[in-house]
Amino acid sequence: MPANSDLLRVVLVSPRNPLNIGAAARAMSNFGFSHLRLVNAYDVAYLEARSAVNAAAVLTSSEQYHSVAAAVKDCSLVVGTASRGHRVLEHPFYRLETGGRLIREALTAGPVALLFGSEKFGLGNEELAHCHWLMHIPTREEHESMNLGQAVAVCLYELIRSDQEEPPVVSRKFAPANAENNERIADLLHVILHESGYTEARTEASTVNKIRRMVLRLNLSARDAIIWLGMLRQILWKVRSQQ
Amino acid sequence: MPANSDLLRVVLVSPRNPLNIGAAARAMSNFGFSHLRLVNAYDVAYLEARSAVNAAAVLTSSEQYHSVAAAVKDCSLVVGTASRGHRVLEHPFYRLETGGRLIREALTAGPVALLFGSEKFGLGNEELAHCHWLMHIPTREEHESMNLGQAVAVCLYELIRSDQEEPPVVSRKFAPANAENNERIADLLHVILHESGYTEARTEASTVNKIRRMVLRLNLSARDAIIWLGMLRQILWKVRSQQ
Repeated sequence: MPANSDLLRVVLVSPRNPLNIGAAARAMSNFGFSHLRLVNAYDVAYLEARSAVNAAAVLTSSEQYHSVAAAVKDCSLVVGTASRGHRVLEHPFYRLETGGRLIREALTAGPVALLFGSEKFGLGNEELAHCHWLMHIPTREEHESMNLGQAVAVCLYELIRSDQEEPPVVSRKFAPANAENNERIADLLHVILHESGYTEARTEASTVNKIRRMVLRLNLSARDAIIWLGMLRQILWKVRSQQ
Repeated sequence: MPANSDLLRVVLVSPRNPLNIGAAARAMSNFGFSHLRLVNAYDVAYLEARSAVNAAAVLTSSEQYHSVAAAVKDCSLVVGTASRGHRVLEHPFYRLETGGRLIREALTAGPVALLFGSEKFGLGNEELAHCHWLMHIPTREEHESMNLGQAVAVCLYELIRSDQEEPPVVSRKFAPANAENNERIADLLHVILHESGYTEARTEASTVNKIRRMVLRLNLSARDAIIWLGMLRQILWKVRSQQ
């Protein structure tokens, strides 16, 4: 979570569908943002949304406003979301990747409002006039318009994502198998293949090397090497037992 | 759009809610992905989803399967999404930022399946055993579980987002083995071990999954997979020939 997630205000302007309000609140809760503001929300939608599961706290503390001006009053940066088709030419217009970085920087200085328009029409000119700049999610030009709940989730994800490479979480340290066990595995496999009639005497020498290289390419962990040894020994026993 | 978006298969396992299937399809259309596969989708959900707006093309061309194995057959990388709580300890487990990069790299080599579990339970152990590795969206630990449609949107956004830098050119000498051949190898090995007396009837079910995961951890190349198949078939023939 960014240190200043408490300074972001997610502002839904004229949302109509309670499922979308609930979905926006759920994404906020998932990504650690808590300030939801609704401007001219359709009353029924608002009441239905408040019964949505999984986003109770965000919805309960959400605030209702009758104008964008009132909803963004305390914010030092106001950002609108828009599709390429709806952009207002006077505004700087960033892709989400860039806009997200600018918002993160602004959050270190003060509250930031992030505006989403209604499901059908997006933000209108009146509402866009409150914005310092706009950003868009980089969707296909042939199908730009995203579902409101999904758009909120994607924007908030961009705000919390991190480029810090982390090592994969693996429960146990998987130490690699040592050469001795790799060699044992190659030997066993070779013997089994020989007894099974897979190898030919004529090409025996090169076969041994091929098998050894192939075993090394498996990059077995020390733990898996022990399991493979057990399996191969049992197979060898079976292959030999009835000759 | 990434050049290889046509090679991604989005696989929804046991989805129950038609709105979520429709939302997943809409996000796919927004971000330029077209191959949707449904495994054991609740029939009513599937039919209702097909009438969803804004995702017509993706839904019309979606395919239904009765098993994860069948749905990922042509894929050389199978990635599961999971929350931190549901992870399987043997799997490498990445944050989406890292997992997304790995998927983009893999898409330059061959088809990749991205699995999402059911709304209620996520992916089960049986389904996770088909995955090479897992990834999670970096949500808050206190509220990890995302809505299915939003989770799909966030993952696909990560795949298409751009830092304005050229993606590194990945030179893969060896194309990875596809799921079908990995599955065949696991099956053959299982049969051989069974006939050799390595497995116990009592633990048979968990053994199958263990073997499958172990084979996936080998990260076989397509070429080596063929060789292993040949070797295992011969071993099986030998094991059986004198019973």
